[in-house]
Amino acid sequence: MQRYFTKLSEVPADYQLEPQIFHHAIRVMRAKEGQMFELVDQQQRVKLMKLTRVFANQAFAKTLKTSLPQVELPVRVTILAGLIKNSKPDLLIQKATELGAAKIIFFNADFSVAQWKEQKVAKKLVRLQKIAQGAAEQSHRTQVPLINFVTELKKFDFSNYQFKMAAYEESAKQGERQNLSLIIQKVKQELTRQQTKPALVAVFGPEGGLSMAEVAYLQRQGCCLSGLGPRIMRAETAPWYLLAALSFALELG
Amino acid sequence: MQRYFTKLSEVPADYQLEPQIFHHAIRVMRAKEGQMFELVDQQQRVKLMKLTRVFANQAFAKTLKTSLPQVELPVRVTILAGLIKNSKPDLLIQKATELGAAKIIFFNADFSVAQWKEQKVAKKLVRLQKIAQGAAEQSHRTQVPLINFVTELKKFDFSNYQFKMAAYEESAKQGERQNLSLIIQKVKQELTRQQTKPALVAVFGPEGGLSMAEVAYLQRQGCCLSGLGPRIMRAETAPWYLLAALSFALELG
Repeated sequence: MQRYFTKLSEVPADYQLEPQIFHHAIRVMRAKEGQMFELVDQQQRVKLMKLTRVFANQAFAKTLKTSLPQVELPVRVTILAGLIKNSKPDLLIQKATELGAAKIIFFNADFSVAQWKEQKVAKKLVRLQKIAQGAAEQSHRTQVPLINFVTELKKFDFSNYQFKMAAYEESAKQGERQNLSLIIQKVKQELTRQQTKPALVAVFGPEGGLSMAEVAYLQRQGCCLSGLGPRIMRAETAPWYLLAALSFALELG
Repeated sequence: MQRYFTKLSEVPADYQLEPQIFHHAIRVMRAKEGQMFELVDQQQRVKLMKLTRVFANQAFAKTLKTSLPQVELPVRVTILAGLIKNSKPDLLIQKATELGAAKIIFFNADFSVAQWKEQKVAKKLVRLQKIAQGAAEQSHRTQVPLINFVTELKKFDFSNYQFKMAAYEESAKQGERQNLSLIIQKVKQELTRQQTKPALVAVFGPEGGLSMAEVAYLQRQGCCLSGLGPRIMRAETAPWYLLAALSFALELG
């Protein structure tokens, strides 16, 4: 069933479809009176909605049922990724959304070949946020990942994160194979005495990897350097590996 | 360092670069005498090679060092995937190669929208095999995944596999969260008394998922239906999740 995200935190009894939802449901999908869709409110509640009245420029729906499915990762994961080339940010965002990321933030890394001009950042973020929203709808999430950009690593505030790691290829090459597992063990322990969802930030380099200076800075911020297995992954693939590993370890079995 | 796969199982003392390697190393990368590259032989040995003589149409190199790095998953994973649309097979192969797949085999699934014309299959496989080879070189693997195609699910021989599973969205929706973990536990047990590498086949549907008939057939073949977490992934993303979960569980910590 088609799923949309509303900007409302409470859906009124006689809900008027918001412009973007109206456009997609009525104009693109040609939904008629009586048809149903799902609406996720800002409190991550999923409302089964039925279209009651459809007009040329507006439409209304009512709530049939409200549920609160648990489809979000038990840890809030921020992917902090060095800016990558061409349409790679699109792909990273689409897949990281399917795999459960809470935030995806790009930064100008020392080895970033790609550069975003300052006057274009806002426009790019609007486009990328739409990709995240579409992927969140398709993967039936109840939360749209927040997409953002910081001009440099030092502008990112690590103090809000309980768990901090950086994927470091050199660690993997030197046979480092324990740290990710140790971090996930700690997250698991935290979940047993959980009040609020713990937050984890994971830093990834661009195509050329993280520089020595960046690695040193990240260590000073408390990031644990972790290998992600013995194969070398491209810049966009590594965050997916992490998200899948977290899901497997925390959500399955 | 640039890595190539040779078709030889023994690299001679005075190795003449094979045509494709010559083309890439000398014509594309403009390597000169004295420069080094890595060559992986058919026994998964990695040879550090030094160019000794470069001519217009041929070049020779000698082995400086031989190593046998363990970068392959401890289980041989075959991804059996319903044919997906457009360039999605390319993307699935590239990323599944980075994530360690041993074979990737497509089949015409009941809900496959994409169709491969019989006379085009051979040509498509050549192209896809090249994508796998390129990704294997980049990710520093010692094995190139084998790419293949079967016209229908029933033409695939499940009898060679010790472990068999099918990723089934309906299982996930019904909250099935244990089977993948159980399979991986069994693989782990097998690895402790390992003589040869165990083989696992994992079946994935195309965009529309697996049909009821396919699911019933797969169960008769001994496939365990497994959910891959509570979020719905696109057809190409689900195999990556599995490979990352296997790597995390078997290679890290």
